[in-house]
Amino acid sequence: MTKINSPRETDEKGEGFLKSIAIDAVIFGFHNNQLKVLLIEYKRTGLFALPGGFIKDDEDVNSAATRVVNDRTGLDDIFLEQFYVFGDYSRYNPAQFKIIISAGGAAPPDDHWLLKRFISIGYYALVDFTRAKPTPAAIFDSCDWYDLGSMPTLIQDHSLIVDKALNTLRANLDHKVIGFNLLPGEFTMGDLQKLYETILGKKLLRPAFQRKMLALGILERVAKKWTGGAHKAPYLYKFINETIGFSSKQ
Amino acid sequence: MTKINSPRETDEKGEGFLKSIAIDAVIFGFHNNQLKVLLIEYKRTGLFALPGGFIKDDEDVNSAATRVVNDRTGLDDIFLEQFYVFGDYSRYNPAQFKIIISAGGAAPPDDHWLLKRFISIGYYALVDFTRAKPTPAAIFDSCDWYDLGSMPTLIQDHSLIVDKALNTLRANLDHKVIGFNLLPGEFTMGDLQKLYETILGKKLLRPAFQRKMLALGILERVAKKWTGGAHKAPYLYKFINETIGFSSKQ
Repeated sequence: MTKINSPRETDEKGEGFLKSIAIDAVIFGFHNNQLKVLLIEYKRTGLFALPGGFIKDDEDVNSAATRVVNDRTGLDDIFLEQFYVFGDYSRYNPAQFKIIISAGGAAPPDDHWLLKRFISIGYYALVDFTRAKPTPAAIFDSCDWYDLGSMPTLIQDHSLIVDKALNTLRANLDHKVIGFNLLPGEFTMGDLQKLYETILGKKLLRPAFQRKMLALGILERVAKKWTGGAHKAPYLYKFINETIGFSSKQ
Repeated sequence: MTKINSPRETDEKGEGFLKSIAIDAVIFGFHNNQLKVLLIEYKRTGLFALPGGFIKDDEDVNSAATRVVNDRTGLDDIFLEQFYVFGDYSRYNPAQFKIIISAGGAAPPDDHWLLKRFISIGYYALVDFTRAKPTPAAIFDSCDWYDLGSMPTLIQDHSLIVDKALNTLRANLDHKVIGFNLLPGEFTMGDLQKLYETILGKKLLRPAFQRKMLALGILERVAKKWTGGAHKAPYLYKFINETIGFSSKQ
């Protein structure tokens, strides 16, 4: 698998790639009751961005998105979904890409393929924070998790892309199994509720939440959690995998 | 507004358009308790397809989709949403486009921009059947409504695009106001229920349906329908516009 992780790893003509189309991935993780998002920083530019990439001439668009997320996290079994195409003309701003390309050495020619207008297909991914290994490409200064509430300024319309991904995640909470991939293999009902509360940004009523989750028929009770104390130990649950599956192929 | 409705209305290089990206629109209408979809037929080819188009260099992607639907229906106030990007490599099949372009006269050169690989952004539109005026472009033999159950064979993966649009419509029934635009201005609860039943392909229980719809707070009762008979006349309803709005701009 050729790894093309960044604007500077292609030639000036973009030989071998579809033109005008990019992918941006909003990779969510959950840790310490915080929803986090993976960001990269282009070397010697101070410019932060979502992980992204391009589509090879003979590559499925969804496969390209899987490749992008795999390159940055090392994970294969990811929940990955298209959620919106960002295609307004107003997002076209080649100045930042001139900086990014120039930081590698010479300034790009004006007809460099990356200085033309691109539309971006937005994907969001839900990954297990504890298993993901944030991996920068050679031309990144960093690739790391950021709390949603304290992200640096992002290039282009990437902040808007994060907002829209979060709204999609919220809208999907009622009819998709979002917890899968964001939680470790076994978890308490309290863990699951905290995840939902963090995504929604509000408190939920415990009995109603528990009732709703159990009614979905997607949870299996595995064992009592050993707390070592005199208090009532909470049950541990896991998702019944067979009923869920991954959607990176949709 | 320049009207570019078809492959044969651009030059061989596709000057002025984004490359590799097309739009396909699944335009749904509802009439006589049938869900219908608008299809076009390329002149002298016998090839049927979804209405589609390309994106001008300086045009927003969503505006291009609005333009495509407007060109084929004459309607401006349309419910229009992106629902999926069709980007598998396997959908690349230039043979049909060779036929379509050749039907206009000379065969296209091998490097004609439309014979290269395209990805397609799928939009679905919900329109008022009674107000839409199906309008063929010069190079179409026809532009007309077809019942979902009796569509002709479509080019490329257009049948799959219709299927996925229908699935999206079904999935959205619970949390979007789908009736708006598919029904005339005033309708009975029975009309609304028939629309939902047609989309879902199954019968619904009247009392539960009515309770659910009224609980949404989006319907306004306007008047008793005059049936002229001795039977109990059903109420007429309309949507409370202020709470709904259009989403062609999203």
